Amino acid sequence: MIEVDHFIYAVDIIGTLVFAISGVLTAIDKKFDFVGAIVIGTVTAIGGGTIRDLLIGSTPVGWLQDTNYLLTVFAAVLICYFFHKPVRRWRKGMFIFDTVGIGLFTILGIQKTLAIGLAPTIAITMGIVTAVFGGILRDILTNRDPLIFRKEIYATACLAGGIIYVVSLQYISNPNLCMSLGVGAVIMIRALSVKFHWSIPYSPREWV
Amino acid sequence: MIEVDHFIYAVDIIGTLVFAISGVLTAIDKKFDFVGAIVIGTVTAIGGGTIRDLLIGSTPVGWLQDTNYLLTVFAAVLICYFFHKPVRRWRKGMFIFDTVGIGLFTILGIQKTLAIGLAPTIAITMGIVTAVFGGILRDILTNRDPLIFRKEIYATACLAGGIIYVVSLQYISNPNLCMSLGVGAVIMIRALSVKFHWSIPYSPREWV
Amino acid sequence: MIEVDHFIYAVDIIGTLVFAISGVLTAIDKKFDFVGAIVIGTVTAIGGGTIRDLLIGSTPVGWLQDTNYLLTVFAAVLICYFFHKPVRRWRKGMFIFDTVGIGLFTILGIQKTLAIGLAPTIAITMGIVTAVFGGILRDILTNRDPLIFRKEIYATACLAGGIIYVVSLQYISNPNLCMSLGVGAVIMIRALSVKFHWSIPYSPREWV
Repeated sequence: MIEVDHFIYAVDIIGTLVFAISGVLTAIDKKFDFVGAIVIGTVTAIGGGTIRDLLIGSTPVGWLQDTNYLLTVFAAVLICYFFHKPVRRWRKGMFIFDTVGIGLFTILGIQKTLAIGLAPTIAITMGIVTAVFGGILRDILTNRDPLIFRKEIYATACLAGGIIYVVSLQYISNPNLCMSLGVGAVIMIRALSVKFHWSIPYSPREWV
Repeated sequence: MIEVDHFIYAVDIIGTLVFAISGVLTAIDKKFDFVGAIVIGTVTAIGGGTIRDLLIGSTPVGWLQDTNYLLTVFAAVLICYFFHKPVRRWRKGMFIFDTVGIGLFTILGIQKTLAIGLAPTIAITMGIVTAVFGGILRDILTNRDPLIFRKEIYATACLAGGIIYVVSLQYISNPNLCMSLGVGAVIMIRALSVKFHWSIPYSPREWV
Repeated sequence: MIEVDHFIYAVDIIGTLVFAISGVLTAIDKKFDFVGAIVIGTVTAIGGGTIRDLLIGSTPVGWLQDTNYLLTVFAAVLICYFFHKPVRRWRKGMFIFDTVGIGLFTILGIQKTLAIGLAPTIAITMGIVTAVFGGILRDILTNRDPLIFRKEIYATACLAGGIIYVVSLQYISNPNLCMSLGVGAVIMIRALSVKFHWSIPYSPREWV
C-alpha cells in the first residue's frame, strides 16, 4: 500500500501546484502585487479542502499540518514569475494535471468525510466542495462571477465520479481499484465534455 | 412536546425551501447553469446556519447530519425549473413563509448558542447571523452589494424578536410561548416595516 | 506580568476600534444602512481573528467569548455617526493605531497558533491572516478588489515582524521583549514603506 499512498500524495501535490498556478495567473491578470499573488494562489489551491475540513469539523485544517502545501504554492508563485510566458503557453497542456487533480481531490474529500461517519450523499457533496470551491473562492476574491457556474460540466464530472466511487465501494473489495474507477470517471467525463462541448444549461421553461 | 417539535421541523424545512427558491431565482437571473443554481440555492438556504455552526464550533455543521436539507434545496431547483413563471408570480405570496422562516431561524440560532453556554448578547447575534448570512453569501457569490445592507429593516426585526425571546425566557416558564413571542415579533415588525416603508438610514451628521 | 497583559488587552481593543472605524467609513461611502454599518464594522475588526480561530480549530471563536469586542464595534458605529467629519479628518492620525494594531494582531495570532503546537511557518502565516483578512473580507462584502493586493507593503511588514518574533523566541528568554521586537519591526517597516513608497510589484518577466 505504501507505494500507492506515495503516488496519491504526489498527485495531490501536483494538483495543488496546478491549481495554485491557475490562481497566480488570475492575480497577474488583475495586476495584483506579490502578496496578492500568494493569497490568490493559496486560496485557489487549498480553499476547497479548507472549506471541507471546516464543515466536517476536521481542524486544524489539513494544510496547517503539512507545510508542503504552502511550499507548493510558493513554488507556483516563483514559477509564474520566472517562466511566465511558457506557463501561459503550456496551460492547455496542464489540462490533464488539472483534471487528474479534481478527480483525486473529489475522491480524497469523499474518503475523509466517510471516515468520520457521515452519509454517502453528504460525502459526495463534500468531494465536490473539495474539488470546486478553490476556484469559486478565487473568483470571489478577484471580484468575478464564479466561472464554474457557466462553464463546461466540471462539477458534474466530480458528481458522476463520486457516485461511481461510492457505489463501487459496496461491490469491490480493493479500495485502490474503486479509487481508480472514480478518478478515471472524472477524467473521462471531463475530457469528453470539453471535446464535445457538453454543458448542462438551466433554462426554466417559460411557458408553464 | 413532540408535536411542537414536528411543527418546528416542518417550518424549518419550509423556510429552507423558500430561501433556496430565492437563491435559485437569482442564479436564473444571472444565467448560471445547473450547478450554479444548486450551489447558489444551497448557500442561500443553509449558509446562515452553517456560519453560525462554524463560529460556535458545532461541527459537523447541521445540514451534514440531516440529508433532508440538501433534498429540500434540490426540490427548489426542480420547482423553479418546471414552474418558473408561477414561482415568480407567487413570490410575493411567499413573503409570509420567508418572514416566518427568518423568525424561526433567528430563534433556533439563539437556542443553539445558549445551549453551549454563551452569553445572551452573543446568542442574539448568532440568531441574526443565522437569519441573514444566507442572503449575504448569495449576494457575494453573485457579485452584488449585499441587498440586506440597503433594504427594509430585515435584520432589525430579527434583533427585536431575539431580544423579546431572550428576555421572555427569564419571566415565562413555557419555552414554546417564549418562542411564539419571539417569532411573532419578527413577523409583526417586518410586516409593519414593509407596509409603512420603515427603514433605518445611517447618515452621519455632516455638521459636526 | 499582569500589567503587560492589561496593556496588550488595551492595545487589542484599540486596534479593534480603529479597524471597525475603517469598516464603518467604507459602509458610509457605499451608502449602506445601519445594519450594513454594523456588519461591515464587525467583519473588518474581527474577521481576521475569526478566520484564524476557525482554521486552527479554536471554537467558539474568540469574540464569542468576550462581549467587549462587539461593544467596541458598536462604539465605532456611534463614533462615526456623531463625529463623522472629525473622524474623517483624524483618519491619517489613526495610522499609528492602525499600525500598532496590525503589529499586535500578527504577534497574538502567532502566539495562539504556536500554543496549539503547529509549526512556526504556519504560525507566521496565521499571524498574517489575523492582521490582513479583516480588510480582505471588508472589500469582498463591499464588492471591491481587495485593497491589500495592490497597496503598500502591509502584509510584508507583518511577515517580517512575524519572522523576527519567532526567531527571537529561540534566543531571548523574555517573551515581552520578543513581542516588542516583533511589533516594533511591523511598525517600523510599515512606516518606512509609507514614507518612501516602497512596494513589491509582481511583474513576471515577459521575455522568458
